[in-house]
Amino acid sequence: MDAVTPSEGWGVLHLFYSIDRERAAAEPGAAKRVLDAVAALERDGHQALLSASLGHKADLGIMALGPDLARLQAFQAELAGAPLRLEWSFVSLTETSEYTSTEEQERERLASHTEGLDEEAIEARLEAWRTRIAKYREDKLHPRLPLKKLICFYPMAKRRKGNANWYQLPFEERRRLMGGHARVGMTYAGRVLQLITSSFAFDDWEWGVTLLADDPVALKEILYEMRFDEVSAVYSDFGPFIVGLLAEPAEAVRRAGLA
Amino acid sequence: MDAVTPSEGWGVLHLFYSIDRERAAAEPGAAKRVLDAVAALERDGHQALLSASLGHKADLGIMALGPDLARLQAFQAELAGAPLRLEWSFVSLTETSEYTSTEEQERERLASHTEGLDEEAIEARLEAWRTRIAKYREDKLHPRLPLKKLICFYPMAKRRKGNANWYQLPFEERRRLMGGHARVGMTYAGRVLQLITSSFAFDDWEWGVTLLADDPVALKEILYEMRFDEVSAVYSDFGPFIVGLLAEPAEAVRRAGLA
Amino acid sequence: MDAVTPSEGWGVLHLFYSIDRERAAAEPGAAKRVLDAVAALERDGHQALLSASLGHKADLGIMALGPDLARLQAFQAELAGAPLRLEWSFVSLTETSEYTSTEEQERERLASHTEGLDEEAIEARLEAWRTRIAKYREDKLHPRLPLKKLICFYPMAKRRKGNANWYQLPFEERRRLMGGHARVGMTYAGRVLQLITSSFAFDDWEWGVTLLADDPVALKEILYEMRFDEVSAVYSDFGPFIVGLLAEPAEAVRRAGLA
Amino acid sequence: MDAVTPSEGWGVLHLFYSIDRERAAAEPGAAKRVLDAVAALERDGHQALLSASLGHKADLGIMALGPDLARLQAFQAELAGAPLRLEWSFVSLTETSEYTSTEEQERERLASHTEGLDEEAIEARLEAWRTRIAKYREDKLHPRLPLKKLICFYPMAKRRKGNANWYQLPFEERRRLMGGHARVGMTYAGRVLQLITSSFAFDDWEWGVTLLADDPVALKEILYEMRFDEVSAVYSDFGPFIVGLLAEPAEAVRRAGLA
Amino acid sequence: MDAVTPSEGWGVLHLFYSIDRERAAAEPGAAKRVLDAVAALERDGHQALLSASLGHKADLGIMALGPDLARLQAFQAELAGAPLRLEWSFVSLTETSEYTSTEEQERERLASHTEGLDEEAIEARLEAWRTRIAKYREDKLHPRLPLKKLICFYPMAKRRKGNANWYQLPFEERRRLMGGHARVGMTYAGRVLQLITSSFAFDDWEWGVTLLADDPVALKEILYEMRFDEVSAVYSDFGPFIVGLLAEPAEAVRRAGLA
Repeated sequence: MDAVTPSEGWGVLHLFYSIDRERAAAEPGAAKRVLDAVAALERDGHQALLSASLGHKADLGIMALGPDLARLQAFQAELAGAPLRLEWSFVSLTETSEYTSTEEQERERLASHTEGLDEEAIEARLEAWRTRIAKYREDKLHPRLPLKKLICFYPMAKRRKGNANWYQLPFEERRRLMGGHARVGMTYAGRVLQLITSSFAFDDWEWGVTLLADDPVALKEILYEMRFDEVSAVYSDFGPFIVGLLAEPAEAVRRAGLA
Repeated sequence: MDAVTPSEGWGVLHLFYSIDRERAAAEPGAAKRVLDAVAALERDGHQALLSASLGHKADLGIMALGPDLARLQAFQAELAGAPLRLEWSFVSLTETSEYTSTEEQERERLASHTEGLDEEAIEARLEAWRTRIAKYREDKLHPRLPLKKLICFYPMAKRRKGNANWYQLPFEERRRLMGGHARVGMTYAGRVLQLITSSFAFDDWEWGVTLLADDPVALKEILYEMRFDEVSAVYSDFGPFIVGLLAEPAEAVRRAGLA
Repeated sequence: MDAVTPSEGWGVLHLFYSIDRERAAAEPGAAKRVLDAVAALERDGHQALLSASLGHKADLGIMALGPDLARLQAFQAELAGAPLRLEWSFVSLTETSEYTSTEEQERERLASHTEGLDEEAIEARLEAWRTRIAKYREDKLHPRLPLKKLICFYPMAKRRKGNANWYQLPFEERRRLMGGHARVGMTYAGRVLQLITSSFAFDDWEWGVTLLADDPVALKEILYEMRFDEVSAVYSDFGPFIVGLLAEPAEAVRRAGLA
Repeated sequence: MDAVTPSEGWGVLHLFYSIDRERAAAEPGAAKRVLDAVAALERDGHQALLSASLGHKADLGIMALGPDLARLQAFQAELAGAPLRLEWSFVSLTETSEYTSTEEQERERLASHTEGLDEEAIEARLEAWRTRIAKYREDKLHPRLPLKKLICFYPMAKRRKGNANWYQLPFEERRRLMGGHARVGMTYAGRVLQLITSSFAFDDWEWGVTLLADDPVALKEILYEMRFDEVSAVYSDFGPFIVGLLAEPAEAVRRAGLA
Repeated sequence: MDAVTPSEGWGVLHLFYSIDRERAAAEPGAAKRVLDAVAALERDGHQALLSASLGHKADLGIMALGPDLARLQAFQAELAGAPLRLEWSFVSLTETSEYTSTEEQERERLASHTEGLDEEAIEARLEAWRTRIAKYREDKLHPRLPLKKLICFYPMAKRRKGNANWYQLPFEERRRLMGGHARVGMTYAGRVLQLITSSFAFDDWEWGVTLLADDPVALKEILYEMRFDEVSAVYSDFGPFIVGLLAEPAEAVRRAGLA
């Protein structure tokens, strides 16, 4: 089976299942079947996060990500044999933000903000910046997500209507707006981990947002605070939100109700 | 199973079930199963309100709330074994309004409205205010809901379009508008009990509204009157409405049609 | 089972069922089951109108109305045992229009329009008005609907957008607009009987409209003509429309396909 | 069973079925059942056009029309016994356009456009006009549709928003706009046959449009060209489109997959 | 069975199936059934591209295209016998763009841009242009699509609202805008193959877009870059997106989960 690998970044599959209770009752071993598929996927260099969902949208959420779209599709096909119904999903790719500074911009910023520094000091800071950016890029393109207590997922799109048309703003204006938006996000560092993946061509909406946190209040607050930010208030539409309790695969599957 | 407890407030699950009549006929004891799950949840320090719903959206409504999201998820998973279909739900957190006065504001208000009072009298009134606010906060964050005859639930969101963008209004303007809105609600004190919970990050829409009343006309009138208030007329979108007849669990389950 | 009675008006349940043909074939006596439930409801002082629906939305329409919401819910729960699927419904309360004249307004109108009348003559006319209004109120709050050949139902809401915000119009402007709207309706007196019930808090949309007529063309024409009236043209959104052939219960159930 | 006959025009039922393959396999004779119902309907003075649909919306389309709504409902109820699922439908009435000229208007037009004609010549032309109009009315109110190769159906409504509110235009402006719209339609005479039926009070949307043609390109082109006409471009919203291959009933049913 | 052939271009059926696992388990040979239907369709001069879909919208995507709509419908009816559920589809016709230059325009362009050329040289270039256009037309009307690794499909419509009404723009303005849009597309030549087919009269939306590529990032980038182009940013609405892994029929069916 040929791999289908993006030239940059990874594929991401958010899968939201309800349990088919009648089939599950008739087919013991469903939990094992799911856990075996997860273990095999991880052995092949992909990650899977499992969660027991709250509410009617799903019982079990699985976020699977890694370098090969064909492997992710095979994982989905494998789970189709279990007593699960795939109620909703989201297909996306990891990416870095186009608004992060270039080295040129960072050098200029350092030159103008740090009057007293000589070339060598600037170069040292640039080196630190390069390391930071490399880690940032790696975290965005090839993320390794930690097991927080909660996972929240929702898709979004930028508005294109009347005076609120994101795609008609100049790049510098979008960069300025996204910078302010990002600063709100940064005040939640340590409390909420965010991963934004692109669904252009791959799914409805334009991006998927995955949030990880231990405290439910942190999730509520970051969404509420950001809604006042111009990027959200004026330029964003949001799709369905779904929250689940993250846990080790065996525990998540058990909580979701699969024996 | 680890608890997942918000750092402030409780989790709230509104669950709306239709009865799977064929499975219910084949599995006697379904009512008992639901009632046992409810009793166990309550023993664990959570509350559950059961209602027999009117209309096609559901047969049985269960509003479950309390400190632990994991316990609420376990309750939902338990009910998944009963001959019920979870048709709709709403996941939210209790919260207090950000527009309630601070002690500083209350002290200033007292100072400016009560010319003749000395410091001691003001302090006595502040103490009364502190008690009132503490009770208000407790009622909002850790509510204990009474068994009225009717329960009404609907979700809502504030508008973000053109000239009607709630999230672009200054705080003081929002505070003023919400104050007027609250005053309409207060004229229904004793007839309609309102609980507003936040679904930012937890569900579609932004807040869930739960209303309890004995007289159907009181529910109709509060909604109708509030629609003329600027907060609703200009800044609010409403989701589906569902009404049920509240009763003791055994009675609600029986009315809903589960034997 | 405690009654749940509005302090004014009645409850109204519009129930739209499709027939579960496989269960109906396996369970003879389904028609009798429905007819028995209808007869019992009527014995308890409620009315039920049955119709064989046209199109895919339903096979059988039942409009049930009367003083006790708990009795109406029990009727719905009883029918849940029949081989029917409740595809759609609408829950509402009867009400009178808030725009009908008060006695004070009528007295002023008489005084200014009838120059030559003395007090006694005015009082006689007021007495006639009181009788008319009492009958109007009774017809709206406690209607007894006749068996026309056709029944049409649809929900509606008043718009709240931009320059077309019904809930921001002054009362007198709304009264004027509704007066014109009502006058169009009155030109159909005898051809189309209209009942408008409120769903604030009880269902999506804001009101339900039930029309009864013998001639399909009368239904088409009243809707078409009213669409040009400002209340509809500018301020109204309409939900799904469903039409059925009204008949005596046994005949309606037979036409709908239940043996 | 009492007839329900419009005082003008006929009833029209567009029924779109998918085939329930499992029941169809278990119940031989399904095709015959459908064909018998069609034959009986036609014996009763109604017409039925059958088509094998393209795409997921339906397998089999049936357009049934004629003088009696009760007979059409009985036809629908009869088909409910076959292994078919009624996925979508549209209920409407035939009607003539309110914008066609009156005899008075035609007389004036003749008088002003035909300077040299005497009264007798004008009368002769009026007589020809009367015959044409009578045929036009008959074709609209009591159509007898030919078996072209393709049938296309879609519903539509006129817009009521902001500056594009059809129902706030003066009659003469609407008449002018519809005249231009009709002229585009007339350029397709012989290639595309159009029937527009009214669904005010009978279904969602406001009108249903049925198009018959032999060449798929003719259907595509008439829709595309008309979209630029002001009536469509500014004042129309369109619902779902469904296309089927028209054929004799036995052939259509066979193509749709019913044995 | 009579053919239904467009007077220009081909019919195109996008079919998106989920697998009915229970029937598939009970009916071995489902894969062979699908593959036989595909082989027969191809023998009859039509093409079928099969893909294993990502996400919940479908398991198996089949894009079938060719000269005869009746043959495509027969293919769909044949697949209805397999353990597949047709979850979504899109019906369209191939077409050429109305904005491509005419020979007259090309001659003028050559004359004005190529000062030094004599008639003969211009004629030689026109001849080359004729060959290019003939190939372009053939690729659009009778495409033969290559097996790239990925296939992406989505429908779209041009906006008709307020100041953004595509159908009220003059032809030359639309031609200018589409020219710029096409130039963005051309920068992806070799990385992304695009086929745009018309669904006027045949399906909801107005056009279907099929993209083929080997690199997932190329799909993401072309959609993202085009969103900033005025045609998309201001004048386009997009429907659901679905992506699948293209493969030889046997391989696609196997990946989709059909044995």
